[in-house]
Amino acid sequence: MRNIKLTIKYDGTRYKGWQRLGDSDLTLQAKLESVLSKMSGEPIEIIGSGRTDMGVHALGQVANFKTSSLMRTGEMLDYLYRYLPEDIVLTRIEEVDDRFHARYNAQSKKYLYRIWNHRYHDPFYRKYAEHIPDKLNLEAMRKAASFLVGEHDFSTFKSSRSKKKSNLRNIYSIEIQKNGNTLEIIFHGNGFLYNMVRIIVGTLIEVGLGRMKPETVQEILHKKDRTLAGPTADAKGLYLVEVIY
Amino acid sequence: MRNIKLTIKYDGTRYKGWQRLGDSDLTLQAKLESVLSKMSGEPIEIIGSGRTDMGVHALGQVANFKTSSLMRTGEMLDYLYRYLPEDIVLTRIEEVDDRFHARYNAQSKKYLYRIWNHRYHDPFYRKYAEHIPDKLNLEAMRKAASFLVGEHDFSTFKSSRSKKKSNLRNIYSIEIQKNGNTLEIIFHGNGFLYNMVRIIVGTLIEVGLGRMKPETVQEILHKKDRTLAGPTADAKGLYLVEVIY
Repeated sequence: MRNIKLTIKYDGTRYKGWQRLGDSDLTLQAKLESVLSKMSGEPIEIIGSGRTDMGVHALGQVANFKTSSLMRTGEMLDYLYRYLPEDIVLTRIEEVDDRFHARYNAQSKKYLYRIWNHRYHDPFYRKYAEHIPDKLNLEAMRKAASFLVGEHDFSTFKSSRSKKKSNLRNIYSIEIQKNGNTLEIIFHGNGFLYNMVRIIVGTLIEVGLGRMKPETVQEILHKKDRTLAGPTADAKGLYLVEVIY
Repeated sequence: MRNIKLTIKYDGTRYKGWQRLGDSDLTLQAKLESVLSKMSGEPIEIIGSGRTDMGVHALGQVANFKTSSLMRTGEMLDYLYRYLPEDIVLTRIEEVDDRFHARYNAQSKKYLYRIWNHRYHDPFYRKYAEHIPDKLNLEAMRKAASFLVGEHDFSTFKSSRSKKKSNLRNIYSIEIQKNGNTLEIIFHGNGFLYNMVRIIVGTLIEVGLGRMKPETVQEILHKKDRTLAGPTADAKGLYLVEVIY
């Protein structure tokens, strides 16, 4: 059996997230598996680097699958481009070592969260960024973010639906960039708990709006209590940028 | 009567263009007039700086209208933000001199045309940029564009449906910028004939693909024959950026 690695860009707007849900065809995994199975003439199951939630986008999601198909990877790329819906595009297909596993072998991940910070929303960003009408204090947000960089137990910033055993994760960096009215928060870490990026963003927004002090973020991090953090920021602003192996 | 100037940003995807068409509500003009009439309690007719075609977007379209309403412009802005659909946002409202006319007083306009130049289309640009799969030669396009800068009779680059008397227009500049796989062509001129920007872009694409020499653009400009130019580039890549008064 060959082992094939896919790099995938998608507009997540109309999907119920990455993971297959029963018979629903409206997940990224189901859509990809359906076209891959037709392509190879055998039932294909793909392994994603991780789930993305309903409405979350990806610039570089990674998945792998095993197949006995002899089709060349270049042909696969053309086939999938032709038969996948317009909002999913494969940017790369490679044959990899049999032991490669998109989830277990992921070393680190990069996420981007985009905010449109202006009194009125932007017509072009209504599905692609969170809209925050009130002015955000960037310096306060950067200071708050600095307390989260490093290895910590991130229980405060995980969804109560998370079932992971260890809540220890290492965030290598959180960069906050502003370009006009667009704010981009870029996360790089060895892994992220369920909803962790969105809860951190929701908390940084509270700080940016002056509703929470930057130092409070450090305090609540140590209390391991989800109820102390800010709300979960909207899915439409979140992009899985890259998975590093 | 007060004279009110509007600056408007819109995602043109689902509209049949700027200009009102009979009873259809799916034009920008009809949508704006309907909300403005409700707001002021009198029938409002707006004058746009010019039409944009079906599917064309705007970052800064300008229009004006006369009203006897006493509502402050700040209140108008809030009212319109609340009642206009999500894909139309007023970015500015000012009370102007009675003589101000959005079309007659326009001194110059800026347009942007966006191209996604990559073998496969981009999921996020499918409604917001033209997709050109083959590599474009930027230097050839810039050279071809240079022949169009200045005052010329642009009959070669106007739609046969255009009814303007004079085809003389002055293009002050055409800039071509590349950022990753995204190409942006920015036009600034004292006015543009019907479909002129899109026909020039279609012709520059022919040059970029090596199907036409840059020098040929200079030759066909002087021949005043639409059939010699390239095809009309797709509406979805075009943005009216600014109207200067």
